[in-house]
Amino acid sequence: MSHNRWEKADPKLAQQGQALIRWTERRMPALASYKRQVERSKPFQGIKMSASLHLTPETAAVVRCLHVGGAQLRLCGSNPLSTRNAICASLVQHDGIPVFAEYGEDRKTYYAHLEAAVALKPDVVIDDGADMIAFLARPARTTARVGFEQTTTGVQRLRGMANTGSLPFPVIALNDAPLKQEFDNYYGTGQNTIDGILRATNILLAGKTVVVAGYGWVGRGIAARMRGSGARVIVTEVNPVRALHAYYDGFQLLPMSQAIASGDVFVTATGCRDVIAQSDFAQLKDGAILANSGHFDVEIAATNLDTISTAKAEIRPNLVEYRLPNGKRVYLLAQGRLVGQSAAEASPADIMDMTFALMAMTVEWAIRDNSVLMDRQLYLPPADLIQRVASIKLEALGLQHDTLTAAQEAYIAAWASGT
Amino acid sequence: MSHNRWEKADPKLAQQGQALIRWTERRMPALASYKRQVERSKPFQGIKMSASLHLTPETAAVVRCLHVGGAQLRLCGSNPLSTRNAICASLVQHDGIPVFAEYGEDRKTYYAHLEAAVALKPDVVIDDGADMIAFLARPARTTARVGFEQTTTGVQRLRGMANTGSLPFPVIALNDAPLKQEFDNYYGTGQNTIDGILRATNILLAGKTVVVAGYGWVGRGIAARMRGSGARVIVTEVNPVRALHAYYDGFQLLPMSQAIASGDVFVTATGCRDVIAQSDFAQLKDGAILANSGHFDVEIAATNLDTISTAKAEIRPNLVEYRLPNGKRVYLLAQGRLVGQSAAEASPADIMDMTFALMAMTVEWAIRDNSVLMDRQLYLPPADLIQRVASIKLEALGLQHDTLTAAQEAYIAAWASGT
Amino acid sequence: MSHNRWEKADPKLAQQGQALIRWTERRMPALASYKRQVERSKPFQGIKMSASLHLTPETAAVVRCLHVGGAQLRLCGSNPLSTRNAICASLVQHDGIPVFAEYGEDRKTYYAHLEAAVALKPDVVIDDGADMIAFLARPARTTARVGFEQTTTGVQRLRGMANTGSLPFPVIALNDAPLKQEFDNYYGTGQNTIDGILRATNILLAGKTVVVAGYGWVGRGIAARMRGSGARVIVTEVNPVRALHAYYDGFQLLPMSQAIASGDVFVTATGCRDVIAQSDFAQLKDGAILANSGHFDVEIAATNLDTISTAKAEIRPNLVEYRLPNGKRVYLLAQGRLVGQSAAEASPADIMDMTFALMAMTVEWAIRDNSVLMDRQLYLPPADLIQRVASIKLEALGLQHDTLTAAQEAYIAAWASGT
Amino acid sequence: MSHNRWEKADPKLAQQGQALIRWTERRMPALASYKRQVERSKPFQGIKMSASLHLTPETAAVVRCLHVGGAQLRLCGSNPLSTRNAICASLVQHDGIPVFAEYGEDRKTYYAHLEAAVALKPDVVIDDGADMIAFLARPARTTARVGFEQTTTGVQRLRGMANTGSLPFPVIALNDAPLKQEFDNYYGTGQNTIDGILRATNILLAGKTVVVAGYGWVGRGIAARMRGSGARVIVTEVNPVRALHAYYDGFQLLPMSQAIASGDVFVTATGCRDVIAQSDFAQLKDGAILANSGHFDVEIAATNLDTISTAKAEIRPNLVEYRLPNGKRVYLLAQGRLVGQSAAEASPADIMDMTFALMAMTVEWAIRDNSVLMDRQLYLPPADLIQRVASIKLEALGLQHDTLTAAQEAYIAAWASGT
Repeated sequence: MSHNRWEKADPKLAQQGQALIRWTERRMPALASYKRQVERSKPFQGIKMSASLHLTPETAAVVRCLHVGGAQLRLCGSNPLSTRNAICASLVQHDGIPVFAEYGEDRKTYYAHLEAAVALKPDVVIDDGADMIAFLARPARTTARVGFEQTTTGVQRLRGMANTGSLPFPVIALNDAPLKQEFDNYYGTGQNTIDGILRATNILLAGKTVVVAGYGWVGRGIAARMRGSGARVIVTEVNPVRALHAYYDGFQLLPMSQAIASGDVFVTATGCRDVIAQSDFAQLKDGAILANSGHFDVEIAATNLDTISTAKAEIRPNLVEYRLPNGKRVYLLAQGRLVGQSAAEASPADIMDMTFALMAMTVEWAIRDNSVLMDRQLYLPPADLIQRVASIKLEALGLQHDTLTAAQEAYIAAWASGT
Repeated sequence: MSHNRWEKADPKLAQQGQALIRWTERRMPALASYKRQVERSKPFQGIKMSASLHLTPETAAVVRCLHVGGAQLRLCGSNPLSTRNAICASLVQHDGIPVFAEYGEDRKTYYAHLEAAVALKPDVVIDDGADMIAFLARPARTTARVGFEQTTTGVQRLRGMANTGSLPFPVIALNDAPLKQEFDNYYGTGQNTIDGILRATNILLAGKTVVVAGYGWVGRGIAARMRGSGARVIVTEVNPVRALHAYYDGFQLLPMSQAIASGDVFVTATGCRDVIAQSDFAQLKDGAILANSGHFDVEIAATNLDTISTAKAEIRPNLVEYRLPNGKRVYLLAQGRLVGQSAAEASPADIMDMTFALMAMTVEWAIRDNSVLMDRQLYLPPADLIQRVASIKLEALGLQHDTLTAAQEAYIAAWASGT
Repeated sequence: MSHNRWEKADPKLAQQGQALIRWTERRMPALASYKRQVERSKPFQGIKMSASLHLTPETAAVVRCLHVGGAQLRLCGSNPLSTRNAICASLVQHDGIPVFAEYGEDRKTYYAHLEAAVALKPDVVIDDGADMIAFLARPARTTARVGFEQTTTGVQRLRGMANTGSLPFPVIALNDAPLKQEFDNYYGTGQNTIDGILRATNILLAGKTVVVAGYGWVGRGIAARMRGSGARVIVTEVNPVRALHAYYDGFQLLPMSQAIASGDVFVTATGCRDVIAQSDFAQLKDGAILANSGHFDVEIAATNLDTISTAKAEIRPNLVEYRLPNGKRVYLLAQGRLVGQSAAEASPADIMDMTFALMAMTVEWAIRDNSVLMDRQLYLPPADLIQRVASIKLEALGLQHDTLTAAQEAYIAAWASGT
Repeated sequence: MSHNRWEKADPKLAQQGQALIRWTERRMPALASYKRQVERSKPFQGIKMSASLHLTPETAAVVRCLHVGGAQLRLCGSNPLSTRNAICASLVQHDGIPVFAEYGEDRKTYYAHLEAAVALKPDVVIDDGADMIAFLARPARTTARVGFEQTTTGVQRLRGMANTGSLPFPVIALNDAPLKQEFDNYYGTGQNTIDGILRATNILLAGKTVVVAGYGWVGRGIAARMRGSGARVIVTEVNPVRALHAYYDGFQLLPMSQAIASGDVFVTATGCRDVIAQSDFAQLKDGAILANSGHFDVEIAATNLDTISTAKAEIRPNLVEYRLPNGKRVYLLAQGRLVGQSAAEASPADIMDMTFALMAMTVEWAIRDNSVLMDRQLYLPPADLIQRVASIKLEALGLQHDTLTAAQEAYIAAWASGT
């Protein structure tokens, strides 16, 4: 059993994991602040939790927070390729948290590990992609009172389950909190997309014409950072209100059919498929670079690119050159998968801090005295909790801000209630 | 009667008004596009409308749109000091629309004019500040089916009336549409606040430390434009989520008590009172400049400033120097009233275009076959209408954007419904 | 005689001038700091100075500095339309400085006043446009040891005189100091050009396509501020190195022949003529706005525009609509003259401060013990004086900065001299 | 002999090198354009050239350009750790250019290789750090007519040699061309510094307080890109004019003694030593990150940091944590060496293109008929050549720009010569 495996692992591996976790926790001060609090108050005492997570320094931080707050935990991975062994080793050896996961494990082992994790008979289930909740959906299997899901994909699967009445318990859709969209997506993905492109190519961004497809929170973040890097940005968008925002923000708004021949670099961030489609490739400039920042690898029709190309060669890690029938060369980054995760390191801990602090605090709220979570449905984190997370983050960053005086509160209240 | 007065007015005044209206209408292409449409379809045929408006080139544009669409109109002003006589003269002489208003008219005349306007027995009431709807609230007075209100203040008054059951008919709160907040407030007020400050002072913004109080849509717009002018921006904010946005947007976040001694220029945009309070004045730097961009003149405690100062002198229009007891001089712009309206010319027609196109199109929606507006309450404009306004605006600006293919729509639908 | 006229002028006029001068001097802290210094050291004692200047609050500040430093002065205007009577009245009544100038004076009076000013038999001549130095070029007329000229035009005229040996004494070309170009032109004109356009039109800049012709210091400043206002900027340029800067700064680089059909707003800043030429007008978009920020009104071929148009009407101050033969309407601001001076208020005192402090300090340097100014040529202000002006400006702004330690100076010296 | 070694190397290594060279050459279109030209005109026919270079894809591109232009070349490395074997293999196997270098070679081999390279008895010497020219300075050793040096350090050594009369032939100091400073340093180093910091740390830049020491071209580039990444930037500077630029550009200007306690991230770019000195470390915030972007590793007193720290651990590649006596942790990137080169990949080929095109074109100019290079001194590339390089770059980028008409040239000429 993996758990056992990590107990016997080389202590140097565990130490390496610990150093990374410590460096990461220092950059997650809101979570750290809440951790100091629960270390005293022990709100999770007696609560059993099973969690399926990407086993990275960031998730290690949230797990360690729940652990010192009294939770009894069992972990498994949420993707065999995202598990980092050094992190597993540190969690087991230094924190005594059972971990059932290993980098590169096969499918059979993955599910055996998932089963080992839920054998705890958890009160709380923390999921990342909904594999664990789906597994528990067969009624006999669960005693859990509440679940948590933080990915778009996972929430999507759970919505399907809720619609068909097969959700096994109420689930908090952490992913859908505006706090996450406006921060993780804008600031986090905005930066890591540029980072991924630079690591894959080392091109100069200044002067380049960059076409950003989609002007949601991710696209806005990318467009802002590309401009900040000296690029000239063209935006494509299907939603007219978002299209107007791009226009008034000073970007050139074009349909993809017109932008396709102008771009030096393309970044898709739409949530849709075939944003750069088979018919587009022939219109690209010689040397055009294609990257995707959406969750799935269908935004650029990479399969089609593969089919029509006359030659293909990897130039650098995550940079593949395709020779088109018309003789031009185009470059696809990270096979069209999320470039900031594949070619860089995903969103920095600094910004994930808020998402994970919200997760931990929502767990406390959900298990305590909450009478809202009555149905086997999806729920949003409560609005006042989001304000509290923001307050804790500000304080943890050492930032002070204003508060209303009594007279000001009265003024606003009078105003809001009508005169 | 005023109406008569404008028929006899100097044709040169009317021509001057007409030139301004034409220049303005060219900068309101969405409204112009809708106007060309209703000129043919005549959706307002047989509908009587009374409107209380700031009689400016921008409102003239929307009135002319309703007029060519078949409406029978009567207008009065919504503030004696905002009425521009040239506009009245042109509307009467060139468009044949009765106008009951004159610049600087006294209170009695103002209300007589309002009464003349509603003597039409309107089906539709268009209001700006809620004076007309309040007047009609006494039941005997109205046959109207629906009203429209576009200001924060007006919506506020109407909410009070709705709460007490005294709203005479359903009212559309145009002001509360996100389309307005995110565009008028951010882009429009963002620019006109800077414009007002420059016209009042002619200071160089580059290098200045500018304290922006409030990071809502208005404050964000001001902060963005100040940075774009070379200023260093400090933000103060009471809401923790907004405070974090300011921080991540790269602004220095401080409580006012700390910012007060650093600012060269202060701009309040909070909707609250005493944001710069009596106790703050002594902490200001010698030469500090104070401006307000909020709706009411209570954000800076100007009355207190007046009381405590040892001397006061107008240096330039809208720029008054106060000598504080500690010997320092501070400068108040436009008496603490909305600086972009008082010292500049309010939001440009280019951006008001969307708000006014939304108004006209919502009137058509409301009078046609709408079964939603059943109760004497406040309603928001419908979401799909907002998308249509945005589409018309894009087209009117000559901008093309993408549309989803059938395959893409299917992909998104599948995704949204769950698998 | 004018001088006499201002002694008898209404004291209220003088007080109004004084209030403006004081407000302006507070925004010129480097000059104020130097003024406090010369008030004690009296370096100008016994020196006679004649000055031809735009009589504005800013020049009043520099004149008052020379005056308290001991200079005996006589002033005349440098353009009858730039003389502000309130300033003249205050200089005469409050400072006792003889002023020979009046707003709107005719050509004959203007030259009579110039003659009155030089009748002082000055040691030092301060000029603005070179009228005074040209007048003194006839040898019999002058006893002056040195002159100062701060405009591009004036320096140009003087260069011609120097080339033909007719310069009557050495002249410092203040205009040519990099300190002026990089600050006044970039930050000052960058801002006042936008200011002029907004005062003339009240258009929204966000989203607009703005074509900036010329990417020298003025063009760069305008492009930066336009981007900061939300505009999308296209740059045209003839110099390839500057063109590359525009490209790498993220602007779209196009020849005017291609940009002409895309621009909503055009701003010329080239120093050349016919940048927008007769053949261009027909290509403009309906509604295009044309402004010039160059010194002369030849950058936009306004005369041609006048000739070919079928109709012309002033819509607002400084905004004239032309109807082209093809039916389109285009708008010319301020008759094609420098828009930031004609429609706004020229560069703010905050940035002129450095230029005028440099002027006053260069006067002291030139009259003291300077042995450099041997020939009847043009000279630049000395480099170390420019560093001193910058130091004084920093200190006056309350800004501290680093200084090298002895060890660091040694390191750099070793490095610079080679090992 | 190495040359021989690469002939026998695995062809796959050579192919890997070739793929990188091709990818790089596509991003150096100005050099490629000039290469196509010299392929026909063969200006280097019969000219022998020895070159000491970092053997990277970028220098391979310039070498291949000289080679197809007819030059007979021999190459050696300029630093054993910068030599990339795949590049050597490709140059030898595919281009037939002798290369005497290998990654990690010892000092003795390095100099043996240098000697092998100059055994060609070159007409032209191309150097990078001045090792080769210094070697040739003993008169008996050289027949070379001209040398080229592109680094600050190399130019510095050569200046020392020129001062003492020991320069063996005229040398063009390519490094000192403004074209290089304003482009490579600002756009290139501006970007790669951020890139290096992100690869070493994966921190979020948005919201961070970043202290940039030095506001020369490098510091300006870094400050601009940091702001573009959402950071709040503080600048420290010793030169008052540069300090004022930082202030007017909207950055906070502070002495390091005040900035030291505020910064989350520090980047030095001064060319000086001890910019962050021993006495500063104790003032740093817990968690502060220190990076250097200057040429030498003395800007941050890393040796002192090592001495005073109580513990030290490498957290990630190029990220070392130091525990200070006061208990705080600070993080030094890349041991205080140039972070953009050590932790990222130095300046992108896109911008090096101009520098290398200038090098190749200056070689042609220097060997042809040039009569300027008479003395054993340092020379700058001629100004008109810089304009030509810029023109070629623009054309290679597919960018068009304006040219003056005859009338415009006459206007400017008249103006420049005086009237």
